[in-house]
Amino acid sequence: MSKWLAIGIGSKNSKGEWLEVYYPKALINPSKLITNKIKELVEYKEGNLSCPIPDGIKPELRKFNKEFQYIDEDLGSHEGVVVIIDSEDPPHDVPSSYLRLHLLSHRLVKPNQINLDGIFSILPTVAWTSHGPFDPADLEHTELNNKLGNNLHTHVISIDKFPPMTDYVIPEGVRIANSQRVRLGAYLGKGTTVMHEGFVNFNAGTLGKSMVEGRISQGVVIGEGSDLGGGSSTMGTLSGGNETLISLGKDCLLGANSGLGIPLGDRCIIEAGLYITAGTKIELIQSKDEVKEVKASELAFKDDLLFIRNSLTGKVQCKPNPKKVSLNDDLHSNN
Amino acid sequence: MSKWLAIGIGSKNSKGEWLEVYYPKALINPSKLITNKIKELVEYKEGNLSCPIPDGIKPELRKFNKEFQYIDEDLGSHEGVVVIIDSEDPPHDVPSSYLRLHLLSHRLVKPNQINLDGIFSILPTVAWTSHGPFDPADLEHTELNNKLGNNLHTHVISIDKFPPMTDYVIPEGVRIANSQRVRLGAYLGKGTTVMHEGFVNFNAGTLGKSMVEGRISQGVVIGEGSDLGGGSSTMGTLSGGNETLISLGKDCLLGANSGLGIPLGDRCIIEAGLYITAGTKIELIQSKDEVKEVKASELAFKDDLLFIRNSLTGKVQCKPNPKKVSLNDDLHSNN
Amino acid sequence: MSKWLAIGIGSKNSKGEWLEVYYPKALINPSKLITNKIKELVEYKEGNLSCPIPDGIKPELRKFNKEFQYIDEDLGSHEGVVVIIDSEDPPHDVPSSYLRLHLLSHRLVKPNQINLDGIFSILPTVAWTSHGPFDPADLEHTELNNKLGNNLHTHVISIDKFPPMTDYVIPEGVRIANSQRVRLGAYLGKGTTVMHEGFVNFNAGTLGKSMVEGRISQGVVIGEGSDLGGGSSTMGTLSGGNETLISLGKDCLLGANSGLGIPLGDRCIIEAGLYITAGTKIELIQSKDEVKEVKASELAFKDDLLFIRNSLTGKVQCKPNPKKVSLNDDLHSNN
Repeated sequence: MSKWLAIGIGSKNSKGEWLEVYYPKALINPSKLITNKIKELVEYKEGNLSCPIPDGIKPELRKFNKEFQYIDEDLGSHEGVVVIIDSEDPPHDVPSSYLRLHLLSHRLVKPNQINLDGIFSILPTVAWTSHGPFDPADLEHTELNNKLGNNLHTHVISIDKFPPMTDYVIPEGVRIANSQRVRLGAYLGKGTTVMHEGFVNFNAGTLGKSMVEGRISQGVVIGEGSDLGGGSSTMGTLSGGNETLISLGKDCLLGANSGLGIPLGDRCIIEAGLYITAGTKIELIQSKDEVKEVKASELAFKDDLLFIRNSLTGKVQCKPNPKKVSLNDDLHSNN
Repeated sequence: MSKWLAIGIGSKNSKGEWLEVYYPKALINPSKLITNKIKELVEYKEGNLSCPIPDGIKPELRKFNKEFQYIDEDLGSHEGVVVIIDSEDPPHDVPSSYLRLHLLSHRLVKPNQINLDGIFSILPTVAWTSHGPFDPADLEHTELNNKLGNNLHTHVISIDKFPPMTDYVIPEGVRIANSQRVRLGAYLGKGTTVMHEGFVNFNAGTLGKSMVEGRISQGVVIGEGSDLGGGSSTMGTLSGGNETLISLGKDCLLGANSGLGIPLGDRCIIEAGLYITAGTKIELIQSKDEVKEVKASELAFKDDLLFIRNSLTGKVQCKPNPKKVSLNDDLHSNN
Repeated sequence: MSKWLAIGIGSKNSKGEWLEVYYPKALINPSKLITNKIKELVEYKEGNLSCPIPDGIKPELRKFNKEFQYIDEDLGSHEGVVVIIDSEDPPHDVPSSYLRLHLLSHRLVKPNQINLDGIFSILPTVAWTSHGPFDPADLEHTELNNKLGNNLHTHVISIDKFPPMTDYVIPEGVRIANSQRVRLGAYLGKGTTVMHEGFVNFNAGTLGKSMVEGRISQGVVIGEGSDLGGGSSTMGTLSGGNETLISLGKDCLLGANSGLGIPLGDRCIIEAGLYITAGTKIELIQSKDEVKEVKASELAFKDDLLFIRNSLTGKVQCKPNPKKVSLNDDLHSNN
């Protein structure tokens, strides 16, 4: 496991509890000089830690980045924080949880490779608004005050434990048609397009170029060159009863409105509208003379499979996949 | 039927027609003192009524809530209104319609328990923008003016008769991953999470803790502990030809991309990808020896059913449901 | 082909490259006087052209529209542009591409009737934010600056080559429940409602009154009076392997979660949950005695068809459609 030290700026609610923390990319594992100075100043020994930014490092930060000329001044509702992750322990507070989500979205760690146990209990539910994050409890007051007093408008974007990724991290080479459908903590490979119907949860994503018009559930990883058709579903493990971690290999296609409930290998296709769950009984046709009945779960991680539902018999069938899926290059040159 | 008196603040278009009205929760059936004073001041007799806030109550309002220190002053484009609902008559104007939607979202009345007849004809289509509600006809002018003159940016969120619920009501104990997918007038039980793919129309919702990753159409009610998988559909009565009001009991599961076109009882499951409409012919398997063919509509309101499409024969089957659906507690402790 | 001359105002990134251009409707083919004066001033000969607004026309513009009193002054990050489209050549730059998208959304040209070849390569990926369009590369800096310095909040709405239509064009008589799901370049017929689950790509749309709760892919056109149920899919040609341009005639119904992979005529129905692809083998039942097997593609453009999957045999069947689809008038009087 790598070690991480990062400097962030976050906001707190009226009780002084963290709502969220933002880590500028340049301040995640910054120079040895800054890192070592901070460790010295906070008398760091080992393990995971969150603490205020020590005053002694602020002159360095100002030199490093001109925005930090403000670091000594009144940060309004914002507050600085230093977080160190140096063990495989789960996150112990909000700043440490947010750093983990940043690491995923900056492609510094891959999904399922950093401990996120208990993150749901740690993260507060935040009202993400057009004027920034609020404690939901504070909002009714604010809104009425705005309407009556100064006529400002506050639009609530979501009430969620996770913010949209792009308000914290914009990875290079991606397009995201609706930022609210990619949570902070999503991992989007370079060249990935998430269309309007696409969705990517935290700790989930695409390893390379991909077209995502379907839903990538928590923990699910999609290989390079794969295409998730509009409304396609990958089964998650957080709700709905599925326990196996789903993944999809390279150059696969999930047809529109299809669904995947088993991990699959490379160059597989599920036809539009067909949902394969682990328990689906399937007629496996390896050749004309080699036909047998299997449960879908027996096909886990296999390559070159084509799944269809025979439209004359209603039987779900699996055959060797004759076609190569290839993404439309025009769509994935993201400038 | 309960009686309602509420004080709201709304906005009008350039012709002086109401666009929308906001009712702070504390001003829906406020103290007897305020309620009686208002009725006296407006010489209220009986039935439904909308009228301006009488001057004589403004000192009381100021005492009641410090924001109301502004109530006498210039409210800018906003205007006060008092609404009384005291009959089962349908809504007669915009303020009365908005109060009904607030009552639903504040869990003061359940879906299908307040008269909303004709609400579509009453509610104006509003451009909901980052700077608040506008008449769509006024927007082109505004936008050009902004670009050329002062360089402000107005983002149009929707052009709709219903605003997002959370710009008016934030019920306790809910998470909503995309506020635009829950209309004002939705009823969300405490502990409900509406994920990115979830949708809840007005006069529809969940009675208790629920995971909503599917679509709850107008009039549809979901029982406590039920889970609507990603992209699952409940058939509405407003369009598409269905006439029966759909509901789902407790502890049910609609699998991802499945659909429900009949009302169902408790502990029912529809497998991922299967759409049950009222007319679907189903093989009902009560035991090995008891198999018969029924129309789905004959199973309305029944408990403990599992619906699948046999993946080897294509036949839609219904069996006694052996499993208990239980929500992931971690996900539903909404803080 | 018609000829177009339009005056727009757009923004550029820090390198001086166009991000986007806005054309007020009144300045698309404005008066002969303005049009001719401009052509004279820029010494226009023929073909397609983009150029700065000539100084000599600015007094006319100011007379024409009071906002243009500002046209000489500092437009901040905005810049004026004149675009002429007078050939069937593809778009050659950003202003010419944006004009084409405006023409579609203003219903001045129908989908598939203006050359958009190569538009993906021309359009830059833009970060569409609550403070307007930005080059994604400039945003991290901006956000940090805001948090530390003046505490302004910038919300990223999308990172996409196409903006939401309604930030540029609001056609008369439409409702759009989520503006982010209708791209600039969509063509929405008068009386169209795009619900929360609906989506309309550029160069695609509805010719008249329609209820859109499904996805209209690039190039797809839907006839008057048709209803796309929640989560229904129309197959596009940009990704996923389909090559035939899909269309749907008048008074059709795609059931919820269904899908369409062939062009269909008038008064057709696909039942909820059924996906018809071009290769689907179908039992065509013309009468009791006339039953044959066909590929779905053989039914292209035919009228009065009902597609179901027989729920007892799993067979996909097509019969004459006995029902008339009619939209709910209440829902489509858009005020």
